Amino acid sequence: MALPTLNPESGFRRLRIELSYDGTNFSGWAAQPDYRTVQAVLEEALSMLAHRPVTTVVGGRTDAGVHALQQFVHVDIPENPPFADIDPKKSWADWNIPNWTYRLNRILDEDIRIISVEEASEHFHARFSALERHYVYKIADGLMTLPPLARFDVAPWYRHLDENLMNEVSAKLLGENDFKAFCKFREGSTTIRNLKKFHWYRLDNGYLAADVVADAFCYSMVRNLVGAAVCIGEGRFPQEWMLDLLNNRERVSDSYVFPGRGLTLTKILYPEASELYQRSLQTVGRRDEE
Amino acid sequence: MALPTLNPESGFRRLRIELSYDGTNFSGWAAQPDYRTVQAVLEEALSMLAHRPVTTVVGGRTDAGVHALQQFVHVDIPENPPFADIDPKKSWADWNIPNWTYRLNRILDEDIRIISVEEASEHFHARFSALERHYVYKIADGLMTLPPLARFDVAPWYRHLDENLMNEVSAKLLGENDFKAFCKFREGSTTIRNLKKFHWYRLDNGYLAADVVADAFCYSMVRNLVGAAVCIGEGRFPQEWMLDLLNNRERVSDSYVFPGRGLTLTKILYPEASELYQRSLQTVGRRDEE
Repeated sequence: MALPTLNPESGFRRLRIELSYDGTNFSGWAAQPDYRTVQAVLEEALSMLAHRPVTTVVGGRTDAGVHALQQFVHVDIPENPPFADIDPKKSWADWNIPNWTYRLNRILDEDIRIISVEEASEHFHARFSALERHYVYKIADGLMTLPPLARFDVAPWYRHLDENLMNEVSAKLLGENDFKAFCKFREGSTTIRNLKKFHWYRLDNGYLAADVVADAFCYSMVRNLVGAAVCIGEGRFPQEWMLDLLNNRERVSDSYVFPGRGLTLTKILYPEASELYQRSLQTVGRRDEE
Repeated sequence: MALPTLNPESGFRRLRIELSYDGTNFSGWAAQPDYRTVQAVLEEALSMLAHRPVTTVVGGRTDAGVHALQQFVHVDIPENPPFADIDPKKSWADWNIPNWTYRLNRILDEDIRIISVEEASEHFHARFSALERHYVYKIADGLMTLPPLARFDVAPWYRHLDENLMNEVSAKLLGENDFKAFCKFREGSTTIRNLKKFHWYRLDNGYLAADVVADAFCYSMVRNLVGAAVCIGEGRFPQEWMLDLLNNRERVSDSYVFPGRGLTLTKILYPEASELYQRSLQTVGRRDEE
């Protein structure tokens, strides 16, 4: 395999699309029959503008109910527009890409918004070029009343949580580890990740929040880490329980997985344009980078 | 009429209820057949707990789509609980009022939350005791992309708005004036109001916001004031247009009314307990205080 698949095919150019969504009424990112997913509605809108079926490649695949303040995808479209009124002189400029942000937002529902559409730098790949994925998880603990206008991106929890205890154990998980205990099994996926940040703090409105940053995450990893840290924060288990899980690579119970509702992808970090090629070389082949 | 109607009937005690709601899926405050309204769902829940039909009196009646960060109502319930298992010894304490916040929130949907339920101070009247109503109106102007997770309490507007121009004219409306030009007609209502604050500013995310404070507002007054100020801010009309409207008491066109979606009741100010009686004396008879 390798590099040829990373760049657009001959005669195509790549677009980098930045978007945001409220995941409440989506069954996650990935297209699946009979469900409303972010990928499906976005590809449908893009296909209308491109006059042909368009496939997206996403930077951070999100589960059902998970939100994104900043998400990136790329799509490859033909160099020359295949408009109905065929004109051999039509060129790349006739796509009028600067206008796509506005046009996509006219088509899409309000719970998904396009922030920008532009031609991608050479070697940009939404998935393989990414250096870091940043998430925030919000919890309204101790039977706190959820403010109705701020209820969609937070998970309620009945017990009060001690964020100092949670920070103590969370700090011990940082670095490159095998997070198998906190990843749902997926064929052929590595579970070795570099966890760069896992820090708890209080928001102005009293919510408990965690910033979680890694090079990449495996499936359900953030929500598993949050659920286990909550067990520490409410005093149900000692810190050693969570550290033993990590070290023994023993899958944590699904009953500790926290809901998608509280999770938001806040940022995907890409390298400077000059380093995109090097980054792609590093990550290509690690098929599970998300 | 007058004072007797301000206090609970003999054998009843008054509860003060603080609540918050996302108005998106409500047809406003006031109960009306076949529509989901805040009053209707709240009275239904209260009636379950009170074992009898309960009528609420509201501090700030909100229109369809309008939100409330802080709203107050009062209800009067019998001194002694009329529980099915009649026990002549049951007393006020058996209502277990401190538990009503939790019980109401179990019954109600997530877009309305009870913040507190407590026995009201003597002479407290949710409507007539209020000194000030505070509102905020938010506009995403200049075709700004609405962040999907912060889209419910803001109105989009396509032109860019000049908040300095808007502040200049808004300041000239302050004080006790006849706001007939900005009030939808209602039989028997006064349109003389004391506008204490009408100030525009930018939020961190770029939204244009106005704080609007008055002793009370008549129907659709805030949304009319906002719509007229927008006409100034986008340069459609000179300031004199808005001041002439005020002075001539000529009803502004409905086409300038801004939608309920961008409007949020943020606070209702009540006097200290010792001054409640005096305040009720002042406002009783002004049937339109809202």
